[in-house]
Amino acid sequence: MHISKKLAEAQAAGSPAFSFEFFPPKTSQGVQNLYDRMDRMHDLGPSFVDVTWGAGGSQSQLTCEMVHFAQTVVGLETCMHLTCTDMAKVKVDGALSEAYKAGCTNILALRGDPPRETEKWEAIEGGFRYALDLVKYIKAQYGDHFDIGVAGYPEGCDDQKDQDILMEHLKRKVDAGGTFIVTQMFYDVDNFCAWVDRCRAEGITVPIVPGIMPIQTHAAFLRRANGMGCKIPQKWVDALEPIKNDDAAVREVGKGLVAEMCRRIIDHGVLALHFYTMNLAQSTKMVLEELELVSQGGTPTKKALPWRQSLGLSRREEDVRPVFWKNRHKSYVARTQDWDEFPNGRWGDSRSPAFGELDAYGIGLKGTNEQNIKTWGKPETLRDISDIFVRFIQNDLKTLPWSEAPVTDEAQAIRNELIDLNRRGLLTITSQPSVNGAKSSDPVHGWGPPGGYVYQKAYLELLISPALITELIDRIDRTETMTFHAVDKAGDARTNSHSDGPNAVTWGVFPGKEIVQPTIVETVSFLAWKDEAFRLGTDWAKCHPAGSPSRQLIDHIMNNWYLINIVDNDFHSSGGIFNLFKGLQVQDLDGPLSSSKPTVNGHSPKPLAELNGNHKVTDGKVFDEVLN
Amino acid sequence: MHISKKLAEAQAAGSPAFSFEFFPPKTSQGVQNLYDRMDRMHDLGPSFVDVTWGAGGSQSQLTCEMVHFAQTVVGLETCMHLTCTDMAKVKVDGALSEAYKAGCTNILALRGDPPRETEKWEAIEGGFRYALDLVKYIKAQYGDHFDIGVAGYPEGCDDQKDQDILMEHLKRKVDAGGTFIVTQMFYDVDNFCAWVDRCRAEGITVPIVPGIMPIQTHAAFLRRANGMGCKIPQKWVDALEPIKNDDAAVREVGKGLVAEMCRRIIDHGVLALHFYTMNLAQSTKMVLEELELVSQGGTPTKKALPWRQSLGLSRREEDVRPVFWKNRHKSYVARTQDWDEFPNGRWGDSRSPAFGELDAYGIGLKGTNEQNIKTWGKPETLRDISDIFVRFIQNDLKTLPWSEAPVTDEAQAIRNELIDLNRRGLLTITSQPSVNGAKSSDPVHGWGPPGGYVYQKAYLELLISPALITELIDRIDRTETMTFHAVDKAGDARTNSHSDGPNAVTWGVFPGKEIVQPTIVETVSFLAWKDEAFRLGTDWAKCHPAGSPSRQLIDHIMNNWYLINIVDNDFHSSGGIFNLFKGLQVQDLDGPLSSSKPTVNGHSPKPLAELNGNHKVTDGKVFDEVLN
Repeated sequence: MHISKKLAEAQAAGSPAFSFEFFPPKTSQGVQNLYDRMDRMHDLGPSFVDVTWGAGGSQSQLTCEMVHFAQTVVGLETCMHLTCTDMAKVKVDGALSEAYKAGCTNILALRGDPPRETEKWEAIEGGFRYALDLVKYIKAQYGDHFDIGVAGYPEGCDDQKDQDILMEHLKRKVDAGGTFIVTQMFYDVDNFCAWVDRCRAEGITVPIVPGIMPIQTHAAFLRRANGMGCKIPQKWVDALEPIKNDDAAVREVGKGLVAEMCRRIIDHGVLALHFYTMNLAQSTKMVLEELELVSQGGTPTKKALPWRQSLGLSRREEDVRPVFWKNRHKSYVARTQDWDEFPNGRWGDSRSPAFGELDAYGIGLKGTNEQNIKTWGKPETLRDISDIFVRFIQNDLKTLPWSEAPVTDEAQAIRNELIDLNRRGLLTITSQPSVNGAKSSDPVHGWGPPGGYVYQKAYLELLISPALITELIDRIDRTETMTFHAVDKAGDARTNSHSDGPNAVTWGVFPGKEIVQPTIVETVSFLAWKDEAFRLGTDWAKCHPAGSPSRQLIDHIMNNWYLINIVDNDFHSSGGIFNLFKGLQVQDLDGPLSSSKPTVNGHSPKPLAELNGNHKVTDGKVFDEVLN
Repeated sequence: MHISKKLAEAQAAGSPAFSFEFFPPKTSQGVQNLYDRMDRMHDLGPSFVDVTWGAGGSQSQLTCEMVHFAQTVVGLETCMHLTCTDMAKVKVDGALSEAYKAGCTNILALRGDPPRETEKWEAIEGGFRYALDLVKYIKAQYGDHFDIGVAGYPEGCDDQKDQDILMEHLKRKVDAGGTFIVTQMFYDVDNFCAWVDRCRAEGITVPIVPGIMPIQTHAAFLRRANGMGCKIPQKWVDALEPIKNDDAAVREVGKGLVAEMCRRIIDHGVLALHFYTMNLAQSTKMVLEELELVSQGGTPTKKALPWRQSLGLSRREEDVRPVFWKNRHKSYVARTQDWDEFPNGRWGDSRSPAFGELDAYGIGLKGTNEQNIKTWGKPETLRDISDIFVRFIQNDLKTLPWSEAPVTDEAQAIRNELIDLNRRGLLTITSQPSVNGAKSSDPVHGWGPPGGYVYQKAYLELLISPALITELIDRIDRTETMTFHAVDKAGDARTNSHSDGPNAVTWGVFPGKEIVQPTIVETVSFLAWKDEAFRLGTDWAKCHPAGSPSRQLIDHIMNNWYLINIVDNDFHSSGGIFNLFKGLQVQDLDGPLSSSKPTVNGHSPKPLAELNGNHKVTDGKVFDEVLN
């Protein structure tokens, strides 16, 4: 969506829009950290984010990659900065094309600095001389596809302090097609407000977005303000100077000063705040909390769907996904990025647009061996493994090899049941409770437009010992409402589902709309997920030295246990799935692996071979064809 | 679906399948009557119907048309009879191709009678000699597309009484590809059972469907039995002879005899009954009731969807329709018959596959002027019109110009509200009450597979005076949950819907499936329906002589009133729609037209011109484009 449209909506609603600016980090670890931070900052609800232009080869490539990541994976509306005077036209073309392909529809058109080595700057031969040239060029090449932002300088810029000239430049950039203005940073609100009034008097009517630099430390504050030639009001000096050596105090007082400045800007009728985050979340978040634009701890944005939507070029209409990747959002986006079209309205045939291989970036287990051992320890018994899963449910661990993010609020409703299962050696990977018509505004389960009702079928996915699975499947068969798919690493697959069609497990009913069914359980994608799930476990095993008890233990589970998913189709009932497991547990959790015999109510269960032949599927890849 | 598969399912379920046979009537009125009867007999739940082959030009064409009608419009799985010895190969090709295009997948391959005029019958040069040849030919031409039935003769046939030879013929027909056997009519059950046993002993394992001729009158009974050379057991003679002049008694006693015969057949393990209906419903229905295969009055078949599915070639997967044609099923099928594909899973864009014109067969008002005047009288005041609508809701009238069928059971829940509206001159066309999660087995609202839940949004469509509509729309706007579309004959269109996307008004949630949403409200199809609705009214006016008060009255309504549909999106509430109409009524229902001023709570309402400008749509054909 165009930023100018978002700003107009905010203005119409009378509620201030805010946005974040990021820049390309220097190291790949820095990039990874920033990606995780962008992911978390999504939930603060920014209207958009900016990514600054990294002039020069690899840095400019990184800008494009960050735009793609923010737009497609994080699902944030992104504005790409683009400088022109230091770039050959062919590079500008490349950057615009990359932005286009990423689904980005907003460009901030900048002049850029002259290369450092030249004494006196000269435009590249055949290149651009002014930001104005770039505005015209983008307009000529892409028409209205891109919303084009331009820079405003309330306190002048490096090589031009004359506001008459600057105002004329600005007017020409807007007249040429600029649809919003982002200003340099400033602390002098009086000057800013006067400048806004002057813009309006000059006939510049597009939205103006003031650039706000929150305060991290006193030194950084001074360095940035002075570097930008930005006037610091005496009041700020008086408040910060005395406490300049106390970082915490500076942040706290700075928060108040910045928030006050924001309030005055808003009171002046400018309902937009653009934060120069310096790639950090904390001080921006403090200001937003102070302004009550987000609640303490961050308000999750009102969700359009139960999962994070992608804003990638061909993905904007996507509204159905399999439940399996519920805790592995980025991996799902990566594994489907080559699809030509995405499920919209209903799940299509996932066999033709195959899921991507596991080797793509971002799909394997994250973190170094050392980090992962630090996180999950060195499990040596099934009890140790069980404890790891229990601690995750208790929110004592923030990740599992199968979960990128902590346990969700939603799982709270079935927390005790999940802990109980994991304590008995039944290792839960994903779950959701049943929901029978919660309002779409419900703080835990709600999503979608107002006035609607949302629903869920209870879902549970777990790793289960091969001996226990016999009894479990028998029990599932005795219910009339449950369906399952089970498969081991080698592909021994079983199901009681009579069709390979999708089973909607989350859906919503809204005024004036078709039924929205954003989450499904389906055979082919389960088998794609199975490869990933067992691979993640095997990756975890490899964090431990070859021959170590931890590696043997985890490998043993991966090589022998089953991954099973269970849907209770009766969404009017609750707790049905957990009743299936009464008396089921892995015994001797503390003993050596060989003695970890599972029991059913104290007796040894039937071996798998005795399982009802109807469930046996000869080739896991074609559950469906075999069963039809 | 193949008949052999249906029969195998019935056998597996242990519940007898039954089927009906029809033949091409001689007159076009006879065809129309039969179509209506087939439509009603659908609800008895036959597994399939047969249409006999009308040898000779127009009659064979009629067979093809009847197959198409049964399959596509009525939605009955149909078996087309095809005789071969009296037909040139090119005609057989033509018939098979017609059956294929109609979606028919079952052929009963018969030899056929020699032409009457020839003394001794000879095969046509290059044609077929035996039914066996036809079986082989169909198999060669169409592979497994058609399920091929063959005739069985437990009591011999016209020119062959030797069971050894007949059995050999039968075995050869089955070996050549016959997948089920339909027998000639008989009354001698002992002989039939022995014959079945012999078939099995000879290695004929395909399902056997006994042909049953219910008894209408004593004369017809004797004529048919003797005509087919069919043995009448002494017991039947003894029971029927004494009462042969009392038609009612014959039917009653005959029903008992035929039912007993059916029971013995079923006890012998043959779970299929094929009724030679002679194009009549009554005596077949009596036998089925006696056998408790349908409940007294007819059990509506368990519906897969809330509306009657078509089994036409490209329509089998169709599962979404607009609600507007709820009472005009055949017209909807006719107006969409040229579509290349049909909505499946969700409603697509109905603008590209345009709705067919109103002139196609079956879309205009049915019945002669005389019949229609007999049915609906000669209304001269709005009160008379109002009474017609009230009598329809009271089930005192079986049709309206806008409803082919009597008011549904479903409407019983809102019967009093509907009567009240119509009494006040608000003329209701279609309606459904809200349903919040009824079981899919619910006798009134249920549809779809077992174990599911079904839902509806309340829906009401009515003809309303142009003066009352202003107030009504104002009231709708004051609710937060209602959406509407209104339009008059000239195309003056209004809506408060913010998108042209479909609004699901009926949906169901079932184990292991995506959400099914078979009924929607949508702009473009409403405008297609509007043309039809006003046309039906105009057709009704034309039943009355030019210049007559009735024609003037009905034309006045058609030319001035609005058609409005209203959806209450809050399906958790009930009765909301009717609250909209409190105090609204057309006054002076009994006066001349000019004085029929509507009032709102006793006051004259605002004229339409004062209606909120937001609703005004300049071109009714593009509600959506204007509003987006």
